[in-house]
Amino acid sequence: MSYDPENIFTKIIAGDIPSHKVYEDDVCISIMDIMPEAPGHVLVVPKNGSRNLLDADPAALAEVIKRVQKIGNAVKTAMNADGILLRQSSEEAAGQTVFHLHFHLIPCHSDVARRDHVSGTTANEELAANCEKIKAAL
Amino acid sequence: MSYDPENIFTKIIAGDIPSHKVYEDDVCISIMDIMPEAPGHVLVVPKNGSRNLLDADPAALAEVIKRVQKIGNAVKTAMNADGILLRQSSEEAAGQTVFHLHFHLIPCHSDVARRDHVSGTTANEELAANCEKIKAAL
Repeated sequence: MSYDPENIFTKIIAGDIPSHKVYEDDVCISIMDIMPEAPGHVLVVPKNGSRNLLDADPAALAEVIKRVQKIGNAVKTAMNADGILLRQSSEEAAGQTVFHLHFHLIPCHSDVARRDHVSGTTANEELAANCEKIKAAL
Repeated sequence: MSYDPENIFTKIIAGDIPSHKVYEDDVCISIMDIMPEAPGHVLVVPKNGSRNLLDADPAALAEVIKRVQKIGNAVKTAMNADGILLRQSSEEAAGQTVFHLHFHLIPCHSDVARRDHVSGTTANEELAANCEKIKAAL
Protein backbone atom coordinates (compact mmCIF):
# COMPACT_ATOMS: atom_id res chain seq x y z
CA MET A 1 0.00 0.00 0.00
CA SER A 2 1.24 3.45 -0.80
CA TYR A 3 1.71 6.61 1.21
CA ASP A 4 -1.10 9.17 1.22
CA PRO A 5 0.12 12.66 2.24
CA GLU A 6 -3.44 13.57 3.20
CA ASN A 7 -3.09 12.61 6.87
CA ILE A 8 -3.18 14.38 10.20
CA PHE A 9 0.60 14.34 10.70
CA THR A 10 1.36 16.21 7.48
CA LYS A 11 -1.18 18.81 8.64
CA ILE A 12 0.51 19.04 12.04
CA ILE A 13 3.94 19.33 10.38
CA ALA A 14 2.56 22.10 8.16
CA GLY A 15 1.14 23.85 11.22
CA ASP A 16 -2.44 23.59 9.97
CA ILE A 17 -3.45 21.56 13.02
CA PRO A 18 -2.15 22.54 16.47
CA SER A 19 0.00 20.22 18.56
CA HIS A 20 2.10 20.21 21.70
CA LYS A 21 5.49 20.20 20.03
CA VAL A 22 8.43 18.86 22.01
CA TYR A 23 11.03 19.11 19.25
CA GLU A 24 11.45 20.10 15.63
CA ASP A 25 14.30 20.10 13.14
CA ASP A 26 14.63 19.46 9.43
CA VAL A 27 14.22 15.70 9.91
CA CYS A 28 11.23 15.34 12.22
CA ILE A 29 8.83 16.78 14.71
CA SER A 30 8.09 15.31 18.10
CA ILE A 31 4.70 15.94 19.66
CA MET A 32 2.73 14.85 22.69
CA ASP A 33 0.41 11.89 21.99
CA ILE A 34 -3.07 13.23 22.75
CA MET A 35 -4.14 9.75 23.92
CA PRO A 36 -1.12 8.92 26.06
CA GLU A 37 -0.59 5.49 27.57
CA ALA A 38 1.39 7.24 30.28
CA PRO A 39 2.07 10.91 31.07
CA GLY A 40 4.89 12.09 28.80
CA HIS A 41 4.04 9.73 25.91
CA VAL A 42 5.39 11.38 22.75
CA LEU A 43 5.47 10.64 19.04
CA VAL A 44 8.44 11.18 16.73
CA VAL A 45 7.18 11.93 13.23
CA PRO A 46 9.56 12.20 10.26
CA LYS A 47 8.92 15.07 7.88
CA ASN A 48 9.94 12.83 5.00
CA GLY A 49 6.60 11.08 4.65
CA SER A 50 6.25 7.33 4.30
CA ARG A 51 3.35 5.04 5.12
CA ASN A 52 5.30 3.32 7.88
CA LEU A 53 8.64 1.65 8.61
CA LEU A 54 8.38 -0.76 5.72
CA ASP A 55 8.47 1.82 2.90
CA ALA A 56 10.57 4.56 4.55
CA ASP A 57 13.67 5.93 2.87
CA PRO A 58 16.52 4.11 4.69
CA ALA A 59 18.73 7.22 4.82
CA ALA A 60 15.89 9.26 6.34
CA LEU A 61 15.21 6.46 8.81
CA ALA A 62 18.85 6.52 9.91
CA GLU A 63 18.49 10.20 10.82
CA VAL A 64 15.13 9.75 12.51
CA ILE A 65 16.30 7.00 14.88
CA LYS A 66 18.97 9.34 16.26
CA ARG A 67 16.20 11.80 17.17
CA VAL A 68 14.14 8.97 18.67
CA GLN A 69 17.08 8.17 20.94
CA LYS A 70 17.70 11.78 21.90
CA ILE A 71 14.03 12.45 22.63
CA GLY A 72 13.69 9.12 24.47
CA ASN A 73 16.41 10.17 26.86
CA ALA A 74 14.74 13.55 27.39
CA VAL A 75 11.38 11.91 28.08
CA LYS A 76 12.99 9.56 30.62
CA THR A 77 14.67 12.46 32.40
CA ALA A 78 11.71 14.82 32.27
CA MET A 79 9.18 12.28 33.49
CA ASN A 80 11.61 10.75 36.00
CA ALA A 81 10.83 7.40 34.37
CA ASP A 82 12.44 4.05 35.09
CA GLY A 83 12.32 2.95 31.47
CA ILE A 84 11.21 3.83 27.95
CA LEU A 85 9.13 1.71 25.62
CA LEU A 86 9.64 2.33 21.90
CA ARG A 87 6.90 1.09 19.60
CA GLN A 88 6.13 1.49 15.93
CA SER A 89 3.22 -0.13 14.13
CA SER A 90 3.22 -0.89 10.43
CA GLU A 91 -0.28 -1.46 9.07
CA GLU A 92 -3.62 -1.77 10.80
CA ALA A 93 -3.02 -5.38 11.88
CA ALA A 94 -0.12 -4.09 13.99
CA GLY A 95 -2.19 -1.27 15.48
CA GLN A 96 -1.35 1.55 13.07
CA THR A 97 -4.11 4.15 12.85
CA VAL A 98 -2.38 7.10 11.14
CA PHE A 99 -0.62 6.03 7.98
CA HIS A 100 2.38 8.33 8.21
CA LEU A 101 5.42 6.78 9.91
CA HIS A 102 5.64 7.60 13.61
CA PHE A 103 7.45 6.17 16.61
CA HIS A 104 5.90 6.02 20.08
CA LEU A 105 8.10 6.74 23.11
CA ILE A 106 6.32 5.80 26.32
CA PRO A 107 7.83 6.51 29.73
CA CYS A 108 7.44 3.56 32.12
CA HIS A 109 7.56 3.47 35.88
CA SER A 110 8.25 0.24 37.73
CA ASP A 111 5.16 0.46 39.87
CA VAL A 112 2.66 2.07 37.47
CA ALA A 113 0.64 0.19 34.83
CA ARG A 114 0.33 1.87 31.46
CA ARG A 115 -3.06 3.19 30.47
CA ASP A 116 -4.89 1.98 27.44
CA HIS A 117 -3.90 4.05 24.42
CA VAL A 118 -7.46 4.75 23.39
CA SER A 119 -8.97 5.31 26.81
CA GLY A 120 -9.36 9.01 26.28
CA THR A 121 -7.75 12.30 25.52
CA THR A 122 -5.68 13.77 28.28
CA ALA A 123 -6.50 17.29 29.32
CA ASN A 124 -4.73 19.92 27.29
CA GLU A 125 -3.15 21.42 30.39
CA GLU A 126 -1.49 18.14 31.34
CA LEU A 127 -0.15 17.71 27.80
CA ALA A 128 1.17 21.26 27.77
CA ALA A 129 2.87 20.83 31.14
CA ASN A 130 4.55 17.57 30.15
CA CYS A 131 5.57 19.09 26.83
CA GLU A 132 7.39 21.88 28.66
CA LYS A 133 9.12 19.40 30.98
CA ILE A 134 10.43 17.36 28.04
CA LYS A 135 11.54 20.45 26.10
CA ALA A 136 13.50 21.54 29.14
CA ALA A 137 15.26 18.15 29.24
CA LEU A 138 16.33 18.32 25.59
CA MET B 1 23.17 1.98 34.33
CA SER B 2 26.03 0.67 32.27
CA TYR B 3 26.35 -2.06 29.68
CA ASP B 4 27.52 -5.49 30.84
CA PRO B 5 28.93 -7.59 27.96
CA GLU B 6 28.24 -10.73 29.97
CA ASN B 7 24.82 -11.40 28.49
CA ILE B 8 23.19 -14.06 26.35
CA PHE B 9 23.27 -11.99 23.15
CA THR B 10 27.03 -11.48 23.17
CA LYS B 11 27.35 -15.26 23.59
CA ILE B 12 24.98 -15.85 20.67
CA ILE B 13 26.89 -13.30 18.55
CA ALA B 14 30.14 -15.09 19.46
CA GLY B 15 28.56 -18.42 18.50
CA ASP B 16 28.96 -19.84 21.99
CA ILE B 17 25.20 -20.33 22.32
CA PRO B 18 23.20 -21.68 19.37
CA SER B 19 20.43 -19.68 17.72
CA HIS B 20 18.18 -19.74 14.69
CA LYS B 21 19.93 -17.04 12.72
CA VAL B 22 17.93 -15.19 10.07
CA TYR B 23 20.60 -12.66 9.11
CA GLU B 24 24.12 -11.57 9.95
CA ASP B 25 26.46 -8.83 8.78
CA ASP B 26 29.09 -6.64 10.42
CA VAL B 27 26.41 -4.51 12.11
CA CYS B 28 23.99 -7.01 13.62
CA ILE B 29 22.56 -10.46 13.83
CA SER B 30 18.89 -11.31 13.55
CA ILE B 31 17.61 -14.41 15.31
CA MET B 32 14.30 -16.11 15.99
CA ASP B 33 12.82 -15.14 19.38
CA ILE B 34 12.56 -18.44 21.25
CA MET B 35 9.44 -17.20 23.06
CA PRO B 36 7.63 -15.73 20.06
CA GLU B 37 4.45 -13.68 20.41
CA ALA B 38 3.58 -14.84 16.91
CA PRO B 39 5.22 -17.29 14.50
CA GLY B 40 8.06 -15.49 12.75
CA HIS B 41 8.86 -13.15 15.67
CA VAL B 42 12.53 -12.16 15.30
CA LEU B 43 15.05 -10.03 17.17
CA VAL B 44 17.57 -7.70 15.61
CA VAL B 45 20.64 -7.49 17.82
CA PRO B 46 23.48 -5.01 17.13
CA LYS B 47 26.99 -6.38 17.47
CA ASN B 48 28.09 -3.02 18.88
CA GLY B 49 26.87 -3.65 22.41
CA SER B 50 24.89 -1.14 24.42
CA ARG B 51 22.53 -1.63 27.32
CA ASN B 52 19.54 -0.46 25.29
CA LEU B 53 18.40 2.37 23.01
CA LEU B 54 19.25 5.10 25.48
CA ASP B 55 23.02 4.55 25.56
CA ALA B 56 23.58 3.22 22.02
CA ASP B 57 26.14 4.84 19.73
CA PRO B 58 23.98 7.02 17.42
CA ALA B 59 25.99 6.12 14.31
CA ALA B 60 25.64 2.41 15.06
CA LEU B 61 21.92 2.90 15.68
CA ALA B 62 21.55 4.55 12.27
CA GLU B 63 22.97 1.43 10.62
CA VAL B 64 20.92 -0.96 12.74
CA ILE B 65 17.57 0.62 11.91
CA LYS B 66 18.20 0.02 8.20
CA ARG B 67 18.58 -3.69 8.98
CA VAL B 68 15.45 -3.58 11.15
CA GLN B 69 13.54 -2.26 8.14
CA LYS B 70 14.99 -4.77 5.71
CA ILE B 71 14.36 -7.72 8.03
CA GLY B 72 10.87 -6.41 8.89
CA ASN B 73 9.94 -6.52 5.23
CA ALA B 74 11.31 -10.05 4.92
CA VAL B 75 9.36 -11.20 7.98
CA LYS B 76 6.16 -9.70 6.57
CA THR B 77 6.67 -11.44 3.23
CA ALA B 78 7.81 -14.76 4.66
CA MET B 79 5.01 -15.03 7.20
CA ASN B 80 2.42 -13.59 4.81
CA ALA B 81 1.63 -11.07 7.54
CA ASP B 82 -0.74 -8.10 7.36
CA GLY B 83 1.49 -5.90 9.49
CA ILE B 84 4.66 -5.70 11.55
CA LEU B 85 4.99 -4.48 15.11
CA LEU B 86 8.37 -3.05 16.08
CA ARG B 87 9.11 -2.86 19.79
CA GLN B 88 12.17 -2.07 21.85
CA SER B 89 12.27 -1.92 25.63
CA SER B 90 14.76 0.16 27.58
CA GLU B 91 15.07 -0.96 31.20
CA GLU B 92 13.07 -3.46 33.21
CA ALA B 93 10.15 -1.08 33.78
CA ALA B 94 9.60 -1.12 30.01
CA GLY B 95 9.83 -4.90 29.80
CA GLN B 96 13.53 -5.34 29.02
CA THR B 97 14.89 -8.68 30.22
CA VAL B 98 18.22 -8.97 28.38
CA PHE B 99 20.33 -5.86 28.82
CA HIS B 100 21.88 -5.75 25.36
CA LEU B 101 20.00 -3.60 22.85
CA HIS B 102 17.57 -5.58 20.69
CA PHE B 103 14.58 -4.78 18.54
CA HIS B 104 11.54 -7.05 18.31
CA LEU B 105 9.84 -7.51 14.95
CA ILE B 106 6.51 -9.25 15.33
CA PRO B 107 4.40 -10.28 12.34
CA CYS B 108 0.71 -9.48 12.84
CA HIS B 109 -2.33 -10.94 11.12
CA SER B 110 -5.64 -9.09 11.11
CA ASP B 111 -7.58 -11.99 12.55
CA VAL B 112 -5.04 -13.55 14.93
CA ALA B 113 -4.31 -12.36 18.48
CA ARG B 114 -0.68 -12.31 19.52
CA ARG B 115 0.48 -14.81 22.09
CA ASP B 116 1.94 -13.79 25.38
CA HIS B 117 5.70 -13.35 25.04
CA VAL B 118 6.47 -15.50 28.04
CA SER B 119 3.88 -18.21 27.48
CA GLY B 120 6.46 -20.78 26.48
CA THR B 121 9.23 -21.77 24.17
CA THR B 122 8.17 -22.69 20.68
CA ALA B 123 9.31 -26.04 19.39
CA ASN B 124 12.71 -25.94 17.78
CA GLU B 125 11.35 -27.33 14.52
CA GLU B 126 8.85 -24.48 14.16
CA LEU B 127 11.58 -21.90 14.84
CA ALA B 128 13.88 -23.56 12.31
CA ALA B 129 11.16 -23.68 9.66
CA ASN B 130 10.21 -20.01 10.13
CA CYS B 131 13.90 -19.05 10.14
CA GLU B 132 14.33 -20.67 6.72
CA LYS B 133 11.22 -18.91 5.36
CA ILE B 134 12.52 -15.50 6.46
CA LYS B 135 16.03 -16.14 5.14
CA ALA B 136 14.51 -17.01 1.79
CA ALA B 137 12.64 -13.67 1.76
CA LEU B 138 15.77 -11.62 2.45
